Amino acid sequence: MEKNNLGVTVAELGEQQVLQRLYQFCETRMVGDDAAVLTPRAGHLLVVTTDMLVDGIHFCDRTTSPADVGWRSAAANLSDIAAMGASPLGLTISLGLPETLPVSWLDQFYQGVADCLNTYGTAIIGGDLSRSPVITVSMTALGEVSPHQQILRSTAQPGDAIVVTGVHGSARAGLELLLHPDWGQVLSSAEYLALKQAHQRPQPRLDVIQALQQLTPVPRVTGMDSSDGLADAVLQICRASGVGAEILQTQIPIPMSFNNTQVLTSEQAIEWALYGGEDFELVLCLPLPSAQELLKRINPTAMIIGQIVAEGDVTLLKPNGEGFLLEMQKGYQHFQ
Amino acid sequence: MEKNNLGVTVAELGEQQVLQRLYQFCETRMVGDDAAVLTPRAGHLLVVTTDMLVDGIHFCDRTTSPADVGWRSAAANLSDIAAMGASPLGLTISLGLPETLPVSWLDQFYQGVADCLNTYGTAIIGGDLSRSPVITVSMTALGEVSPHQQILRSTAQPGDAIVVTGVHGSARAGLELLLHPDWGQVLSSAEYLALKQAHQRPQPRLDVIQALQQLTPVPRVTGMDSSDGLADAVLQICRASGVGAEILQTQIPIPMSFNNTQVLTSEQAIEWALYGGEDFELVLCLPLPSAQELLKRINPTAMIIGQIVAEGDVTLLKPNGEGFLLEMQKGYQHFQ
Repeated sequence: MEKNNLGVTVAELGEQQVLQRLYQFCETRMVGDDAAVLTPRAGHLLVVTTDMLVDGIHFCDRTTSPADVGWRSAAANLSDIAAMGASPLGLTISLGLPETLPVSWLDQFYQGVADCLNTYGTAIIGGDLSRSPVITVSMTALGEVSPHQQILRSTAQPGDAIVVTGVHGSARAGLELLLHPDWGQVLSSAEYLALKQAHQRPQPRLDVIQALQQLTPVPRVTGMDSSDGLADAVLQICRASGVGAEILQTQIPIPMSFNNTQVLTSEQAIEWALYGGEDFELVLCLPLPSAQELLKRINPTAMIIGQIVAEGDVTLLKPNGEGFLLEMQKGYQHFQ
Repeated sequence: MEKNNLGVTVAELGEQQVLQRLYQFCETRMVGDDAAVLTPRAGHLLVVTTDMLVDGIHFCDRTTSPADVGWRSAAANLSDIAAMGASPLGLTISLGLPETLPVSWLDQFYQGVADCLNTYGTAIIGGDLSRSPVITVSMTALGEVSPHQQILRSTAQPGDAIVVTGVHGSARAGLELLLHPDWGQVLSSAEYLALKQAHQRPQPRLDVIQALQQLTPVPRVTGMDSSDGLADAVLQICRASGVGAEILQTQIPIPMSFNNTQVLTSEQAIEWALYGGEDFELVLCLPLPSAQELLKRINPTAMIIGQIVAEGDVTLLKPNGEGFLLEMQKGYQHFQ
């Protein structure tokens, strides 16, 4: 990786100076003690999620700027907070950094994190810096949720409508564009940008949680995010709840550009939508009237894609009426 | 590093199997959703601390078994919770692992973490696994504290007694023993073991926090832990509080074995006590009567080592009556 034309390195600046520089991105009252302190609201549950990203494995210079690494990492954690039905309270960042890393990388990374957190009304509340041979980002996000608004994976019931909160496959297509720019030649510049942004600047769906909280009566909601793919999310929910699902392929929202067969075959389009991953939408199961009410309050690309059934299989109904059993195997696996 | 004679690797086992194996070490109700859920006590503040450790930088096979890496990492985080006056609520672990790492390393690491957490009445509540070229451990500990028992660094006042909760220099001596076993030849086997344990199995001082909470009236307490050295702790507290300190060298508790000049010169002994680091004791500033009351309730090696003064310097009074100004420079610095 070429990271040596960007000025002073973290080793040249030294730990104390680096820390001073990073404090400007942090909630100032949190800095300077052994731990950060938060005041959770009375009667709320505390939600905690953590994530590790490693240079060359989860991101690389070719597709992701330092600011995008920061945004994406923060967004992934906030998406897990949203997936629990919670609101974010703050985020800690531990970083492992090579001594030769330019300080400008670090500045841009923190700017990306701060931009994402500011967008969603939260902040960096603490962290740790360490030397490491490889850039390693570890984040922990905290959130709070009132007990009756908590979203688990294990509470889906037959008859629940399955809602996806937006298009799937965009992030996978965005990665393709960044790796193989030629692939995007047939796209309009708006389509190109939308797919690239889906990969580089994913939007955690905290707005959907706010919309859910405004529904009366408060519905029973089951769900998770689609960070490991739409198929994986439906399968995980069904396994945890001991139920099955029927999904209508024609109802799965995909980017408009996927309908252009010069861009993708329909087989590839559905493959990316189901297994592409990293779209960071929510997959929610709730009674049909509440699902319909929710759809009125959020983006029009959100769709009811099917329903929960009592039998244990997850079936995708193809446009020709054939049923196809979805399986776990294609989900992302580390160490393989 | 030799890690290839220990059986099946994480890549051979695969992520799902590795996760199933690690779940046995975790609080079971926390596993299987996008985030862990905790119920903080009403009226309590939430305390959050995070830490990253990298193989070859913070630990190595020569001095630290996988179980000790786990214990030490957990202990360091619990020590930060204690340093805030808080009680632990749980810990998340993110791990970056080479594909060739034997699963037995991971089992032993988690066993070490679980042993430490069980000792202090808390548990693993979540985590993440990632591929990485170097073993990387990132932990985040959560704790709770009632607002009037919160311990900060910035509230010390002239006249406060400075308490250290135990001997300093042991962890540094334990490291020396592990790196240069010959050095320990003059020690008794009990002394040898005590120093080695101080390095491998440090004890976060959550018991001191319990003792403080039993004092009536509740004193104003300022402090931090001595993970970066005793001198660093006193200096940090004085800087944050805008005060100075006078420390009596003869009052600093050191291991009995340090008094044997065949083991260490008195200069080396005080050097290790002040700057050795990783003893994970607490350095607390509180009104003298409360300090005396506290000392009656904890281990007899805890000592009042001096007092806070209005002037900004931190002076070490040597046994011959000379004053010596303590400075930051010797503290541990990353990236240098």
